[in-house]
Amino acid sequence: MRRVVATGTFDILHPGHLYYLEESRKLGDELYVIVARDANVKHKPKPVIPEDQRLHMVAALKPVDHAILGDLHDMFRPIVEIRPDIITLGFNQHFDEERLRQNLGERGLDAEVVRIAGYFGSLASSSKIIERILNTRYRSGPGGS
Amino acid sequence: MRRVVATGTFDILHPGHLYYLEESRKLGDELYVIVARDANVKHKPKPVIPEDQRLHMVAALKPVDHAILGDLHDMFRPIVEIRPDIITLGFNQHFDEERLRQNLGERGLDAEVVRIAGYFGSLASSSKIIERILNTRYRSGPGGS
Repeated sequence: MRRVVATGTFDILHPGHLYYLEESRKLGDELYVIVARDANVKHKPKPVIPEDQRLHMVAALKPVDHAILGDLHDMFRPIVEIRPDIITLGFNQHFDEERLRQNLGERGLDAEVVRIAGYFGSLASSSKIIERILNTRYRSGPGGS
Repeated sequence: MRRVVATGTFDILHPGHLYYLEESRKLGDELYVIVARDANVKHKPKPVIPEDQRLHMVAALKPVDHAILGDLHDMFRPIVEIRPDIITLGFNQHFDEERLRQNLGERGLDAEVVRIAGYFGSLASSSKIIERILNTRYRSGPGGS
């Protein structure tokens, strides 16, 4: 049973997220997804969607077997508990892979770190979706369903 | 084999969509979802997400067995092909249920029409998500991922 861990914010779900999760799931038998806590998103604007809702929606996607929220203080704690065989990184996750492997080793984990390629689609990015909303809806006012 | 049909725009996926699809799926053995065409969304602002992407994301949700785009000219055509036992309506879909039953009858269908209750959550609506983006991101500029 090969366990795979994927991580991310998953703010407004789009095909880029789905592709990352599908490709991650293919590498093993069981996919765990660790969803970033609101308080821990510091390298980009705060998520639009609160963490509980982001978790709820990620858990509803077909490739996902288990979804959990990250730890507020120690990003490695859930990974130590899951003991994955593989950890995947999205194409735009700016981890230093070598340092990540070293940190995992210090925690007694020898998970393989695999970088998943990017998905190319017109709105396969939360920031592009947000930009489109700002560009198309600001003057006409909010709406939709 | 009880076939259920659910329909909608599913613009920016949220727990309200998911609840509607989960409750619809529970009524039968197989859930077909008909996703509204961009050109046919006339009673509210145009969707932010193009139809192919909305279809792609709906098809990735666990309760969904089959997802297809609606017909551009005849909303009943895919329903006639699927021949569902049940058609579900979301709490905010403004169909006249009696007239819908009558239209189905004229097409030789006697599907049961079931109204699914609303889901109450803070951001369980695409328009609320859009409003939140406009309120929180407009001054600081687009961003996120």
